[in-house]
Amino acid sequence: MVSQSLENVRRGYRPAIASLLEQIEELQTKESQDGGAHSELSTIFPKTYQQKTGFFKAGANVVKRSRAKVGVIFSGGQAPGGHNVIAGLFDACAQIYSEFELLGFLEGPRGLIEDQWIALDAEVVDAYRNLGGFDMIGSGRTKIESSAQFEAVRKTVTAHGLDGLVVIGGDDSNTNAALLAEDFVQHGVGTQVIGVPKTIDGDLKNRFVELSFGFDTATRVYSEMIGNIATDARSAKKYTHFIKLMGRSASHVTLECALKVQPNFAIIAEEVQAKEQSLGQIVEELTDLVMARSKVGKEYGVILIPEGLLEFIPEVKRLIDQLNAKLEVSALEESERAIFESLPRLIQDQLLSDRDPHGNVQLSHIDTEKLLVQMVELELKRRNFSGAFHPLTHFFGYEGRSGFPSNFDATYCYNLGFVAAALIKEGKTGYLCALKNLMQEVRDWQPVGVALVDLIEMQERKGKLKPVIAKALVELDGGPFLSFSEKREGWKLGDDYVQSGPIQFGDSADLCNAPPLTLALESSVVS
Amino acid sequence: MVSQSLENVRRGYRPAIASLLEQIEELQTKESQDGGAHSELSTIFPKTYQQKTGFFKAGANVVKRSRAKVGVIFSGGQAPGGHNVIAGLFDACAQIYSEFELLGFLEGPRGLIEDQWIALDAEVVDAYRNLGGFDMIGSGRTKIESSAQFEAVRKTVTAHGLDGLVVIGGDDSNTNAALLAEDFVQHGVGTQVIGVPKTIDGDLKNRFVELSFGFDTATRVYSEMIGNIATDARSAKKYTHFIKLMGRSASHVTLECALKVQPNFAIIAEEVQAKEQSLGQIVEELTDLVMARSKVGKEYGVILIPEGLLEFIPEVKRLIDQLNAKLEVSALEESERAIFESLPRLIQDQLLSDRDPHGNVQLSHIDTEKLLVQMVELELKRRNFSGAFHPLTHFFGYEGRSGFPSNFDATYCYNLGFVAAALIKEGKTGYLCALKNLMQEVRDWQPVGVALVDLIEMQERKGKLKPVIAKALVELDGGPFLSFSEKREGWKLGDDYVQSGPIQFGDSADLCNAPPLTLALESSVVS
Repeated sequence: MVSQSLENVRRGYRPAIASLLEQIEELQTKESQDGGAHSELSTIFPKTYQQKTGFFKAGANVVKRSRAKVGVIFSGGQAPGGHNVIAGLFDACAQIYSEFELLGFLEGPRGLIEDQWIALDAEVVDAYRNLGGFDMIGSGRTKIESSAQFEAVRKTVTAHGLDGLVVIGGDDSNTNAALLAEDFVQHGVGTQVIGVPKTIDGDLKNRFVELSFGFDTATRVYSEMIGNIATDARSAKKYTHFIKLMGRSASHVTLECALKVQPNFAIIAEEVQAKEQSLGQIVEELTDLVMARSKVGKEYGVILIPEGLLEFIPEVKRLIDQLNAKLEVSALEESERAIFESLPRLIQDQLLSDRDPHGNVQLSHIDTEKLLVQMVELELKRRNFSGAFHPLTHFFGYEGRSGFPSNFDATYCYNLGFVAAALIKEGKTGYLCALKNLMQEVRDWQPVGVALVDLIEMQERKGKLKPVIAKALVELDGGPFLSFSEKREGWKLGDDYVQSGPIQFGDSADLCNAPPLTLALESSVVS
Repeated sequence: MVSQSLENVRRGYRPAIASLLEQIEELQTKESQDGGAHSELSTIFPKTYQQKTGFFKAGANVVKRSRAKVGVIFSGGQAPGGHNVIAGLFDACAQIYSEFELLGFLEGPRGLIEDQWIALDAEVVDAYRNLGGFDMIGSGRTKIESSAQFEAVRKTVTAHGLDGLVVIGGDDSNTNAALLAEDFVQHGVGTQVIGVPKTIDGDLKNRFVELSFGFDTATRVYSEMIGNIATDARSAKKYTHFIKLMGRSASHVTLECALKVQPNFAIIAEEVQAKEQSLGQIVEELTDLVMARSKVGKEYGVILIPEGLLEFIPEVKRLIDQLNAKLEVSALEESERAIFESLPRLIQDQLLSDRDPHGNVQLSHIDTEKLLVQMVELELKRRNFSGAFHPLTHFFGYEGRSGFPSNFDATYCYNLGFVAAALIKEGKTGYLCALKNLMQEVRDWQPVGVALVDLIEMQERKGKLKPVIAKALVELDGGPFLSFSEKREGWKLGDDYVQSGPIQFGDSADLCNAPPLTLALESSVVS
């Protein structure tokens, strides 16, 4: 009963590669007109603030480099495809250098600080090709913040004589990468720091970075589950499913899943914020939906909820801010106290008892989906609803962070690894890897080195101005949201659920390789 | 952006068929030596209790039957493959009869009682081939119990002049099918009743029925999710995941997923019952696990819990029985009261407030996974555990009931549909469709008509003897459990998680067509 495992099959998958990256040893950057000279950043990034984003072009330089030593870390939450960034980096280095060493620092930035690492040779890398998770070297959320931590990292990279350090992470980790690059230059440390845009949330993107990796796979995994549940709802005609989806800072995941599955309702937090909706208004809308469906004989349904919803409801945001500041219900202002008292007991308890080490409310621990269910139940009662309402709640998050990368993510990440190697070869530091034209054939993908300072702005964090890469929120005038808002009225009473099914890894490009709808709709190549 | 959808691709899949079923018009039954003459059932099944289970063999009768009219219902919870039973039935009827009509009664037995139906022609059937859910005609849990209901069903089938009625359902529904068959014979109604063994729980099986349909797909969907979560746990090294899995009456689902994914721990309720474990002992075992893993630097893990656990813990069973009988905590006996008081508040509330219309505790609403988490937390505190314990809970059930059927389930169900048609052609009533030799090539599958009375026994239900098909529990001396118990010690401290990944529908038979491990291990063809 030794049957072929999917792990083994996937290890043998060979991602396609952009034409420009095929001759990576000949690749050169040409600087773009964009960006550069961010004078407001000159105090924090005196050495790097004038760097410019560069598109790669084929070069004429065919000298094979002699040797290199490169380190790599995963930073933050898992996203499918991370191992392929490392595989691409490895294969590209093998192509560029006569000799090279790749060091994997363990459990995120902590591995850099504490100099914990393993050698990533062909055997290790091959074992993880096209597989999900970050378990090759682990990940972690340590931030490099104190000067002692910066010093420790300088010590580590200097001791190893690293030519490059690749940081695979989200917005925070890439801000950290920019600070590290600046710090190294300031201290005469030659290690070049290169970032890679990772996050299943899809909120790390801008005019150069079309998409973060992992978003495609994660939304496909969630959509498989939601589609299965929706088909079940349409079959059993009994339950209304309230499904919360990961993505605290932006609703891209919920929007992509809504576009894929066509549920009866999907809350987009950015819209709630723009319309300044109250919690009560959202509950009313949901109650209207339940009653309207009941009226046409449909006492079941599927509703999608973004994890970060509560923070986007202005009045709840104020309540949380006050709780964070004062910790006591008795100290709340009157209007916030009224909102607090309107909440179900379960949620009141979670708001009061579940605090992080800084005393802040742990919003990710709040069962927003249960909160909405209980408030809808109360509202139905208030309206003397006589029909049936059987709610069930779900939360999908961890299921999608470490799934087998889709062909799209596997290929995208493999190419990003090549871009990282190209940037190191070109002597760049403080750059983020990107590929433009992702909606085109892989061979036409355009490698880009994005100057991290191009993405950084100063924002207030706890009363202090800090450099950050702003999270990209759902744009209410963007293609994905407009497509959603055109169709959603029809989805309310219909049962137009689409079952997208499990991710396929076969030979049908149509079925297996398509990028997410969000990317397609943003690129306006919609048919 | 019109890409090929998996729904469309799957509609085109052509399941293989058993050799004997290819020439279905020539098929004959030969009666087996087994079963027959269940005299204790003679009062309830006076007309059918002597029926015998029959294996099909190739016949010489090549007369094409002229015409037939057949009805079909789904009964109970969804299971992947149901649509293919109907597709097989349809194709087999097309082969056997010059003319035939297939009627789909809507929303389960209720459709029969109320005579609600749709015609299932080629267009309808083709639209659902190889797709999950029961949404072609819906399902329902109505039981045909009162004499008025039996009369209504007789009226419906007589009015339509149905030759056959196929009931696709679990143990209860097939018991109901047996009663319906008997009732029809008693009343001179010629409609033959044929059952099909459906349930994702895997607890409808016996010496003729090797497996119920839907179990393979559902456990593959759950294992995909569990494997993803396990890989995430091994990457982040932060969370201990408590994952509850559907299956209230038996732990087959949990056992199959454990064999597939190799978690750190899996509770098998049948073992708990056999060992007469207390809730406290289970909590101690789990706490031991958490502490042992912490000691080797692994403050994360994956634990599987069967939905029906609480009923298998003798002391909790007694507590629930007393609560069902008396409804009041103050009326509990001393030992049960002590157990009640040892439970976390959340669970106490659920036990007291969540009652079904008969006043019974709704065990399926109890968050057993949260109960265990809270009790492990208390026990860790009691033991002065100084490590980190970050639990997360999940429940997977509805995600798997309506997924795209695996090739195995799609093929199995399609063949079951043929068996149903063969039994109708042979004039049988009160029979359950089965296929023996499922571990062999599809062409060698042996069609069987199992006399339903062969499966029925009398059991006490609320003080009355009732005919039931006993649920098949996990056998502690069976191949699957023995294989599990051999390996599980090694899984505790190791991270031997296997990521089985999303169900594949490609051309690799090895990867796409393998039957569940439970079946393989029960058949002892283990390599």
